Amino acid sequence: MTLFADLLSTVFERRYRPWGPVRRDSRPVTALVADLMGGAGEVTGAGLARQIIDRYGEMDDDAKLDFFRHIATNLALVPSALRAALDAYEAEGQSKATYRAVMAASEPPRQELIRRLNQVPGATKSLVRMRADLLRLARGDEALQALDLDFRHLFASWFNRGFLVLRRISWESPADILEKIIAYEAVHAIDSWDDLRRRLQPKDRRCFAFFHPAMPDEPLIFVEVALTRGIAGSVQALLSENREVLLAQDADTAVFYSISNCQAGLAGISFGNMLIKQVAADLAAELPGLKTFITLSPIPGFTSWLSHQHPQASKPDGETLRALAAHYLAEAKRPDGMPLDPVARFHLGNGAQLHDVHLNADTSPNGVRQSLGVMVNYHYDLKKVAENHERFATSQTVAMSSGFRSLSANATKLLTEEA
Amino acid sequence: MTLFADLLSTVFERRYRPWGPVRRDSRPVTALVADLMGGAGEVTGAGLARQIIDRYGEMDDDAKLDFFRHIATNLALVPSALRAALDAYEAEGQSKATYRAVMAASEPPRQELIRRLNQVPGATKSLVRMRADLLRLARGDEALQALDLDFRHLFASWFNRGFLVLRRISWESPADILEKIIAYEAVHAIDSWDDLRRRLQPKDRRCFAFFHPAMPDEPLIFVEVALTRGIAGSVQALLSENREVLLAQDADTAVFYSISNCQAGLAGISFGNMLIKQVAADLAAELPGLKTFITLSPIPGFTSWLSHQHPQASKPDGETLRALAAHYLAEAKRPDGMPLDPVARFHLGNGAQLHDVHLNADTSPNGVRQSLGVMVNYHYDLKKVAENHERFATSQTVAMSSGFRSLSANATKLLTEEA
Amino acid sequence: MTLFADLLSTVFERRYRPWGPVRRDSRPVTALVADLMGGAGEVTGAGLARQIIDRYGEMDDDAKLDFFRHIATNLALVPSALRAALDAYEAEGQSKATYRAVMAASEPPRQELIRRLNQVPGATKSLVRMRADLLRLARGDEALQALDLDFRHLFASWFNRGFLVLRRISWESPADILEKIIAYEAVHAIDSWDDLRRRLQPKDRRCFAFFHPAMPDEPLIFVEVALTRGIAGSVQALLSENREVLLAQDADTAVFYSISNCQAGLAGISFGNMLIKQVAADLAAELPGLKTFITLSPIPGFTSWLSHQHPQASKPDGETLRALAAHYLAEAKRPDGMPLDPVARFHLGNGAQLHDVHLNADTSPNGVRQSLGVMVNYHYDLKKVAENHERFATSQTVAMSSGFRSLSANATKLLTEEA
Amino acid sequence: MTLFADLLSTVFERRYRPWGPVRRDSRPVTALVADLMGGAGEVTGAGLARQIIDRYGEMDDDAKLDFFRHIATNLALVPSALRAALDAYEAEGQSKATYRAVMAASEPPRQELIRRLNQVPGATKSLVRMRADLLRLARGDEALQALDLDFRHLFASWFNRGFLVLRRISWESPADILEKIIAYEAVHAIDSWDDLRRRLQPKDRRCFAFFHPAMPDEPLIFVEVALTRGIAGSVQALLSENREVLLAQDADTAVFYSISNCQAGLAGISFGNMLIKQVAADLAAELPGLKTFITLSPIPGFTSWLSHQHPQASKPDGETLRALAAHYLAEAKRPDGMPLDPVARFHLGNGAQLHDVHLNADTSPNGVRQSLGVMVNYHYDLKKVAENHERFATSQTVAMSSGFRSLSANATKLLTEEA
Repeated sequence: MTLFADLLSTVFERRYRPWGPVRRDSRPVTALVADLMGGAGEVTGAGLARQIIDRYGEMDDDAKLDFFRHIATNLALVPSALRAALDAYEAEGQSKATYRAVMAASEPPRQELIRRLNQVPGATKSLVRMRADLLRLARGDEALQALDLDFRHLFASWFNRGFLVLRRISWESPADILEKIIAYEAVHAIDSWDDLRRRLQPKDRRCFAFFHPAMPDEPLIFVEVALTRGIAGSVQALLSENREVLLAQDADTAVFYSISNCQAGLAGISFGNMLIKQVAADLAAELPGLKTFITLSPIPGFTSWLSHQHPQASKPDGETLRALAAHYLAEAKRPDGMPLDPVARFHLGNGAQLHDVHLNADTSPNGVRQSLGVMVNYHYDLKKVAENHERFATSQTVAMSSGFRSLSANATKLLTEEA
Repeated sequence: MTLFADLLSTVFERRYRPWGPVRRDSRPVTALVADLMGGAGEVTGAGLARQIIDRYGEMDDDAKLDFFRHIATNLALVPSALRAALDAYEAEGQSKATYRAVMAASEPPRQELIRRLNQVPGATKSLVRMRADLLRLARGDEALQALDLDFRHLFASWFNRGFLVLRRISWESPADILEKIIAYEAVHAIDSWDDLRRRLQPKDRRCFAFFHPAMPDEPLIFVEVALTRGIAGSVQALLSENREVLLAQDADTAVFYSISNCQAGLAGISFGNMLIKQVAADLAAELPGLKTFITLSPIPGFTSWLSHQHPQASKPDGETLRALAAHYLAEAKRPDGMPLDPVARFHLGNGAQLHDVHLNADTSPNGVRQSLGVMVNYHYDLKKVAENHERFATSQTVAMSSGFRSLSANATKLLTEEA
Repeated sequence: MTLFADLLSTVFERRYRPWGPVRRDSRPVTALVADLMGGAGEVTGAGLARQIIDRYGEMDDDAKLDFFRHIATNLALVPSALRAALDAYEAEGQSKATYRAVMAASEPPRQELIRRLNQVPGATKSLVRMRADLLRLARGDEALQALDLDFRHLFASWFNRGFLVLRRISWESPADILEKIIAYEAVHAIDSWDDLRRRLQPKDRRCFAFFHPAMPDEPLIFVEVALTRGIAGSVQALLSENREVLLAQDADTAVFYSISNCQAGLAGISFGNMLIKQVAADLAAELPGLKTFITLSPIPGFTSWLSHQHPQASKPDGETLRALAAHYLAEAKRPDGMPLDPVARFHLGNGAQLHDVHLNADTSPNGVRQSLGVMVNYHYDLKKVAENHERFATSQTVAMSSGFRSLSANATKLLTEEA
Repeated sequence: MTLFADLLSTVFERRYRPWGPVRRDSRPVTALVADLMGGAGEVTGAGLARQIIDRYGEMDDDAKLDFFRHIATNLALVPSALRAALDAYEAEGQSKATYRAVMAASEPPRQELIRRLNQVPGATKSLVRMRADLLRLARGDEALQALDLDFRHLFASWFNRGFLVLRRISWESPADILEKIIAYEAVHAIDSWDDLRRRLQPKDRRCFAFFHPAMPDEPLIFVEVALTRGIAGSVQALLSENREVLLAQDADTAVFYSISNCQAGLAGISFGNMLIKQVAADLAAELPGLKTFITLSPIPGFTSWLSHQHPQASKPDGETLRALAAHYLAEAKRPDGMPLDPVARFHLGNGAQLHDVHLNADTSPNGVRQSLGVMVNYHYDLKKVAENHERFATSQTVAMSSGFRSLSANATKLLTEEA
C-alpha cells in the first residue's frame, strides 16, 4: 500500500483482528461479563468484549432488559464500601492511598464494564446504541435510570469537545453519510436526494457536523446554513428551488436554519452551542463579508401555549400574532423560571438574543401546527454573547432587541386588557 | 479545497478558532480557573480553557507547583458532602436523584476542570504534558499524588484501547514522527537517521505504534519487529548493517526486539500488551508463513541481582551465566511474589512464557552493564497465552519451556551448593 | 493545516492561482491564441490559457465552430515545410538537427496549442469537453475531423493506462461521483438512488472505475460486478430487490453485467479491456474462491439482424431463438470480417470467448427491443485469453465453448434449410 | 478498508497486478519489443511491458546501449513512407484519411513503444530513468540523440503543467521524500538532517516542489524560500542556526534562495519558471504582508569570466568587485546575444530583473570559487514580469534596477579605462 493509504487506513480504522480463531463462547452473557470484570480483563478482555457486544446485538428487548438489570444490580455502587473508604480517608489524613480507595469505592463497577467493552475497536458506536436502548427501556425504572447516569457520565468524558472533529458536509460527502443527514434532519424534513442537493451544492449553502473519530461515519449533530443578503424571514423562500443563488463572498448574513441531533444514545450531552460558535468562527474567517449570524428558528410550543391563553379565540390578525409570539418567547416561563419554549431555552442559554418574529415563515403542515407558521430569529451577536449568557445563567434575564421588546410589550398590554 | 482534502483536513484537525478577537486576560490564573468552573464554563469556556493552557505553558516549575497545589486543595473532594449524599442515598432508597448526588459528590471538581480544559482542540497533548510535570513535581507530596490519581483516572478512560489507532511506522512516515521514534527508543538506542532507516526500510523490518486521534503526531508506544528465519539470539546480529535481507514472505518468525513507551504523562496506563497482540494478529494475517512470535528482550536487573548473589565472584563461564540468568528470571521474586525483573513482569503478565537465554546477545555497553550481554526470549504462543496469563495472574506461576526449566534448575543446584 | 490535509490537498488539487489581478482581455479569442502560440507562451501563457478556456466556455455552437475552424486552418500542418525538412533529413544524413526539424514540421501547431491550453490546472477536463463538442460539430467536415485526430493523438498519450487510477465505487463514494454513475450507466439504467444503493452496498456487489488524476471527479469508464454462485442468466434476477445476498467469500463467479464509458470527449480511446482485466486480477487476489470471470452482456444488433433474416417470420420458439442468437454472434460478420455485433467485437477482441445464450435474460423494454430479451455470456478464461485474442486479431477466429458451437450450428442448419 | 483509505489508496496507487501467474519470458528483449509493437500490444501488452522494463533494469551499460541502438535503428522514422503519405496528402486534398496517414508516418514507432511501455502502472518513473541513461550514453552519437528527441517530446506532453501537483515540503513530509531533497539540493548543500530541519521547520521557512501523480514519491523540482524583513544579502546569514525566527505574517519579503531540478531524465523540460510564479502566487494569497519576491542567487560563471578579463590582476576591492559582477551579469553575452551566466538566463528569461549585488554573500568554498562570494538578487516584480519577459524574448534586453545600472556602468568605465 502506498504512503497515503497506509497513513489513512489507520486514521479511522480501529478494526479488531483477533489473534487466533474465535470460538463462540456459549456461556450466558452474565458469565462473560463476570469474566471480563475478573482478572482476565486486560489480557484476554478484547475477545470477551467482542462476544458480549455481539451477543447484545442479537438480543430482543426482554433480553436487553435482563442484561441491563443484571448490570444495574450486580455492578452497582456498594454504599458500605464507600462509607468505609470515606471513614478511612477522613481518619487517616487524606493520603494518596486512602484517596485512591475512595475513588475506587465511589465508582460502580459498571463504569469499568463500559470502559472494558469499549476496548474493542468499533465498540463506541455499539455502546451509544446500547444507551439509546437503555433510555427507551428505562422509563419508569429508577434503577435503570441510575445506570444510565453512568453511561452519560462516561460519554460526557469521551465526547468531550476536545475529541470532536468538525467536518463540512457537502455534495461531495460520502453517500452513506448523506443518507444519515436525510434521516436525521429534524426541523425541516429533506424529502429526496434532489432536495438534499439543493441544501448542499449551491455556493450560498453550507452544512457542518461534529464527528467523533471512533464513529467516523456517524454525524453527532449537524447545522444547515444559508448565506444571504439581509435576514431571512421565510424558510420556504430560503429553500425555494427557484431562488437566485448568491456568491458566498457577496453574503452579509449567515442564517442557521436547522440544527439536528443525530444520536439518541447521546441524549443530554450537548454539542449545539459549540457547533454554532465553531461554525460562526470558521465562516467569519473564510468570508469577511459576513456581519450577522442569526437563526431562523421554529417556535414549537407556541400553538399549544396560545390555545391555553385564548381557548375560544379566533385566529388573531397578523400583527397581534407576531406580538403574541414575541410575548410567548420572552415572557412565558416554566415554574423554574426558564422559558417555556425549548428552542428558546437552547439559544438564549447559548447567549443569543431574540431578534425578530416573522409571519408565514414556515408554511409546512408542521410549521402551521406548532406555531401557526410563525418563526423567530435568534441573533448571535459576537459582542454580546458572553454577557447575554451570563445574565441568563445567573438571573434568567432574556436578551432581546429593542424592536422585539416593543413587540412583546404590545402583547402584554393586549393580554392584560383581555384578562 | 477538494473533496479529499476537505474530508481529511477535518479528520485530525481539531483546531480552535476563537470567534472574535482574543484578548489576554490579565487576571491570575486561579481566577480564570474559578471562571471556567463557574457558570460560564460551557458557553464561554473554550476561550478560558485556551488562556489557562497557554498561561500554564509559560510557567516555571515553582509556578506550576503553585498551580497544582491550588487545584489539589481548592478543587478537592469534599468528604462531608459525599457523606451527606451517601446518607441520603441509603436513607431514601437509592433513587436516581440520590445516586446522581453521590456521583456528583464523589468526583472532585478538579476532574471536571481537566475535562473543561480539554474542550479546546489540541488540549489533550497539553494535558498529557501537564501530568508529566505533575508526576515529576509531586514526588514526596501526597496531596499532589492524589491529584495525579484524577489525571490518571481520566486518561485511562480517554486513552481506552477503543479510541487508539494502530499505525505502521515506515521510512515513508513523516520526519517529525520519526524523530520522536529516535528520541523515545528506550531499549536499543537509535544513533542516527541512517540507523533508523536500517530499522524501517528493509523488507524484513516492521515498526508499529499506537496513536490517539487527538494527538496524531505523538506516538504513545511503539514496537520494532524483525522478520527472521529461526529465533534470533543476538540483537547486534539482528541490527547488523551487513546482514542479508529476507523477503517478508520467507520469514517464519517475528522477533519483537524493542518496545518503548513514549509519553511520560501516560505513566501507569498500559498499552504494551495490546500492542504486541494486535501487531501479532496483523502480521499473522498478512504473512501466513509466520509461525513463531517471540521477543528478544533485555534482562535489566540481572547484573544487580547477580552482584548480590556473588559479591566477590569472578565472571561465571558461559553456561553457568545462562543458567543463572534463567534462574534469575524464573525464581527471583519481589516480596509480593512477582518476578524481580520488570521486563519479565510485563511479558509474563501478558501471558508469554520464558523460552531461551542467549550469551553475547547484547554486547552494547548498556547490555553488558545491565545483564553481562545476556538476553532472553519470551514466547507469545497463541495457544497458551490465555492460560499462561490466567495462572500467572492467579497464582504467579511462571510459564517456561522445558529447556528453560532445566537451565534454571541447573542454577538452583549451583546456588544451593554454593550456599 | 495538518500533515494529512497538506499532503492530500495537493494530490488532486491543481488549482491555478494567478499571480496578481486578472483582467479580462477583450481582444478576439483568435488574438489570444496567437499570443499563446507566440513568444509569451511559456512565461505568461497560463493567464492566456485560462482566458481562452473561459471564453470558449461561454461560446454558442456557431462561435465554437468558428473557433475550431480557425484552429484547423491557421494552425494546420504546413506540407511544404514538412517536405523541406524531409528533404534535408534525407540529404544531410539523418542528423539530430535534421530529425528535430522533421519532428517540428510534422506536428501541426494546433497540437502545441492544445498542450499549452492544458498548462492551466483543471484544463484537462475542459479540453475533453471541447473535443466532445468538436466530435459533435465536425460531422461531415473533413477539416474538423482532421483536427480531431490531433486531439485524439494527444489524449491517447495523456490517458495512457500508466496514468490511470482504478478506484472502487461504493456507497461510501462521494455523492457527486455517484450521480455521474447514475447518469452514465448505459446498459441497464439506474432509476433512483435506491436502485444505485442496491448495486453498490450489498456484500456481493462491486463497482470499479478508472479515473485520471487531472479529472478526479470524473469517472472515465466503470464496470458493475455481481458476485454469484454459478453463472447468471438473467439481469433482472441479478438486480432483484428480493434476491438473497451472498457473502463475497462464498461466491465462485464474478459476473460483469454492465460496462459504461463516461466521456464522449474520449471516444476512440479504449479503456474497457484493461478495466476488465485489472478488476478481474484484483478480485481474484482478494477473493480466492472466485473461479469464473464472465459477462452477462446485451446483444444490441440481434433484433435488427434477425428482421433481415426472417422479414415475415413469427417469433421463433425459445431454443430456436437461442440458436439464432448464437449464430448471429458467431457467424454474422461485417464486410471486413469482424463480427457484426459491436459488443461481440469488444469482448472477442479482448480475448474472451462466447459461452452461453439465455432467454428472457433482459426483459426490460430496451432488452426486448434490441434482442428479444436474449443475452449472452462472454467468458474471460485466464488460460485462454491471450491465445483467443491472438487468433481473433490475426485471423478473426471467434472463440467459443463447445456448447455454444453446437447451438450456433443448429441455427446454421436451420437457416440453410430455410434458404 | 474504510472510506478514506479506500479512496486514497487509489489516488496514487497505480499498481499493476498481473492476472494469473507471471512467467519470465526468456526470449531476447528485442523479441519482446517486437511482440509489444505487434498485434498483441493492446491486450496482452501490460505483461510484455513489465518484462521489458524489468529486463532493462538488469542491464549494464553495454546492454543498454544495444537496446537503445536497436530501438533507434529499427523503430525509426521511415522517410519514404512519410514522403508517400505527404504526396497523397497534397495530391488528394488534405482529407481526414490522408492526414491520418501523414500523422502515422511522421511519428517513428519508437514513440509508440515508449507509450506502450508506460501502460504498466509505475512505468513512468522507469522511463524517466531510462532517458537519464540515454542522455548519458548518447554523447557523441547522433542517432541516439535523435532517439532522445522522441523521449523528450513525449515527456514534454506528459509532464505538462496541467498534470503537475504543487506540494509543500515540510518537516512533516515523509522521510523518503526528504532524503531526496537532501540528495538533490544543488545550490547550497544540505549536510545533515539537522540542517534540513532548519530549512523546513521554522515558521519563516518554506519549501515547495512539483510532483507528477504517476511518480508521487519523486519531486521534480523544488524551491526553498526564506521569509524575511528586507532583502537578504548573505546566504550564510539566512541559514544561520542562531538567527532570530520571524513569524510568517511579519515578513515583507520572500527570498527564493535555492531552486534545484531533481530528475536528470527530465532535462530540457522546464518547470522552474512556473514553480516560482505558482509559489509566489500562493504565498501572496496566504501572507498579505509579503510585498517583495526576490531571489538570492549564485553567479556561477563570474570567477571564470573575471579571470579572462583580468588574467594577472590581484583581487579587486569590494566596490569594484560588485561593479564587475553587475557588469558581468548585465553585459557579458554569448555569441547568440544571451547572457553568459546560466542563472541569469533563467531568471531574466522568466521576466525577473537584476536588483542588487552583495559581497561576502556566499562564503562557502563553492561560493568563493565560482563568484568570489558575490551573489545577486533577481527581482520578480509582478507589475513588470510580463513586459520584462517580452523585451528579453524579443530583443534580449536585460531588465535591471537603476541602482544596478549605475553599478554596472561603473565597471564598464573601469574596464574601458583598463583597456
